[in-house]
Amino acid sequence: MELDLSGRRVLVRQLESSDEWWESFDQLLVATGASPFCPEVPGVQAQGIFGVSTLQSGVDVRRFVDEERPKRAVVIGGGYIGLEMTEALLLRGLDVSVVERAPQVMNTLDSDMGALVSDALRQQGAHVFLEESLEAFESASGRIKAVVTDQRELEADLVILGMGVRPNSDLAKKAGVALGEKGSIRVNDRMRTNVDGVWAAGDCAESFHRVSRKPFYIALGTVANRHGRVAGTNLSGGDAEFKGVVGTAVTKICAVEVARTGLQEKEIEALGLPFESVTIESSTRAGYYPGAGYITVKLLAEKGSGRILGGQIVGSEGAAKRIDVVATALHGEFTAADMAELDLSYAPPYSPLWDPVLIAARELAKKISS
Amino acid sequence: MELDLSGRRVLVRQLESSDEWWESFDQLLVATGASPFCPEVPGVQAQGIFGVSTLQSGVDVRRFVDEERPKRAVVIGGGYIGLEMTEALLLRGLDVSVVERAPQVMNTLDSDMGALVSDALRQQGAHVFLEESLEAFESASGRIKAVVTDQRELEADLVILGMGVRPNSDLAKKAGVALGEKGSIRVNDRMRTNVDGVWAAGDCAESFHRVSRKPFYIALGTVANRHGRVAGTNLSGGDAEFKGVVGTAVTKICAVEVARTGLQEKEIEALGLPFESVTIESSTRAGYYPGAGYITVKLLAEKGSGRILGGQIVGSEGAAKRIDVVATALHGEFTAADMAELDLSYAPPYSPLWDPVLIAARELAKKISS
Repeated sequence: MELDLSGRRVLVRQLESSDEWWESFDQLLVATGASPFCPEVPGVQAQGIFGVSTLQSGVDVRRFVDEERPKRAVVIGGGYIGLEMTEALLLRGLDVSVVERAPQVMNTLDSDMGALVSDALRQQGAHVFLEESLEAFESASGRIKAVVTDQRELEADLVILGMGVRPNSDLAKKAGVALGEKGSIRVNDRMRTNVDGVWAAGDCAESFHRVSRKPFYIALGTVANRHGRVAGTNLSGGDAEFKGVVGTAVTKICAVEVARTGLQEKEIEALGLPFESVTIESSTRAGYYPGAGYITVKLLAEKGSGRILGGQIVGSEGAAKRIDVVATALHGEFTAADMAELDLSYAPPYSPLWDPVLIAARELAKKISS
Repeated sequence: MELDLSGRRVLVRQLESSDEWWESFDQLLVATGASPFCPEVPGVQAQGIFGVSTLQSGVDVRRFVDEERPKRAVVIGGGYIGLEMTEALLLRGLDVSVVERAPQVMNTLDSDMGALVSDALRQQGAHVFLEESLEAFESASGRIKAVVTDQRELEADLVILGMGVRPNSDLAKKAGVALGEKGSIRVNDRMRTNVDGVWAAGDCAESFHRVSRKPFYIALGTVANRHGRVAGTNLSGGDAEFKGVVGTAVTKICAVEVARTGLQEKEIEALGLPFESVTIESSTRAGYYPGAGYITVKLLAEKGSGRILGGQIVGSEGAAKRIDVVATALHGEFTAADMAELDLSYAPPYSPLWDPVLIAARELAKKISS
């Protein structure tokens, strides 16, 4: 495929027949998505190494597990995809190792909260190797045999690549469309690129962060869906604005729920904002109610103003969805004191009398006013 | 007990010894709570009739069930206490009938949402009799035998009174303290009564509704706890403000979760506000994810401005706590369009791609702008 922006046309290739022709356009939407990062290390072509990005790649992994009965899996990368695949493989009875280059899994969490996830993963039976870099894959007869890191060699019958995605922005870039954060296509609040009549949406396009007030790249289905609605409305003559995201995400690894929203410490530090944080432990239900589990809530706010900047939750069943209250508070630009006032629901099956999010907000408000 | 406000003193009676003395005060906190309403109908003194308001009354009911093995229970009143006791008794294997004077149970919900709860109760095996008034209790040898309504006679070995509570405000009223909504003690935003140095907090005291901007009576533990903090801070020389509630409440009846916040239709109508509402059905998790259940979300907003006025949720496990997002939006005075923008968390174990609350907000925003 090729874009000719001055000629307002696209070179289209019919994949089955290899026929090519130029198609002209008035309005063009670039929705090329993102691709899982595939490292350029020796042996990466071996059978049994999978990226997971499409429905088909999920089907491929499942078929491989059913038919080849692998015993040892190595997951490269401790982000959402890596850890969700770790869950799936543990539940299928495999011996699973996770290799992560950073000092923690889930690097969209602060290190203290990420450490809780590493601990939980180990409790679920996974082996977790942190601060280790992938160096090579070893294979025999074209099949994966081992993963070589800078620290050790891990036997493997199956490897999952969960090293994040990169926006597919080459086509747009070559045609002269400006790029932004992490190589994604830069757009304005209408999802229009720097070229009149050319729009971008989804995992190839940049977003805007409502808390940092800066461009931001995040490849999530919820965001892509919103992008598409805004771009579609505008390019067909309507008027819609993409007001941005607060960076909310949630995942589950076996019995462990993990959620985050807003800015994490390193993002706040990069903005040069002074901040305070609190981390509290509570329970998901009234302590005496059957099924009460643990929950750890971390909240971050700007010093002085008290404006909430972000939140992170790790806990057992019922913990994670509470992040939505923090996300809503971020949209409302609430302070920690505003949050502590929230009239949230209480009944013993759902929460202690003070919801864990309120306990954290109250502690944070105290810390800021003292 | 007696209050002498001009003399700044309280007549205290030691209950065991019957000794009485006057105790003087500089600051006085009235925290007399509320009492379950007990109807003045014939036979109400029979054994086997219980109000449920204290830990001890819960213990009494449980002991009665354990020792007397009642088979048929009648619950008078379909509010939170009535329905939570219905759950407990159904789980203990009793045949349970609920008698409610209104056309629906849970009259803090609109009638359409209340009807879902009635249906769910019947599915759980309870008999639900609506628009029926209690007329008398029949007993034999001092023990309850039947409940007589204006429609029928229901055999009963156990009766639970769940007819709401009334604030214990007589003591304050007699001393000249002004009362407010539903006979509760009127307070300002410091929890001070009309008398200098006299404060009230908890189920005896009035609250302020942030959405209607009017005084409001609500007897809930979360609210009482906040009252107490504000009153305690102020009467001891500090400075705290009670900014009010939005009327959030949640309950569970067997597999059915019920939640509400803000104003319901009849409250909005009483304020004379024009409004729109939507009710949507969705699922608690991605449709293909194991354990996905149903959820119905109703949202109400002011016509014109689009300001969110309230929300109600009925659904299966995982449904109810979503009300906290609506409550937080009420605190932020969000419009339906603001709510539809919320960057809420999504992963298949937690939600469809668009959280049910967002689906409702989007539909409502459309309705308001059209």
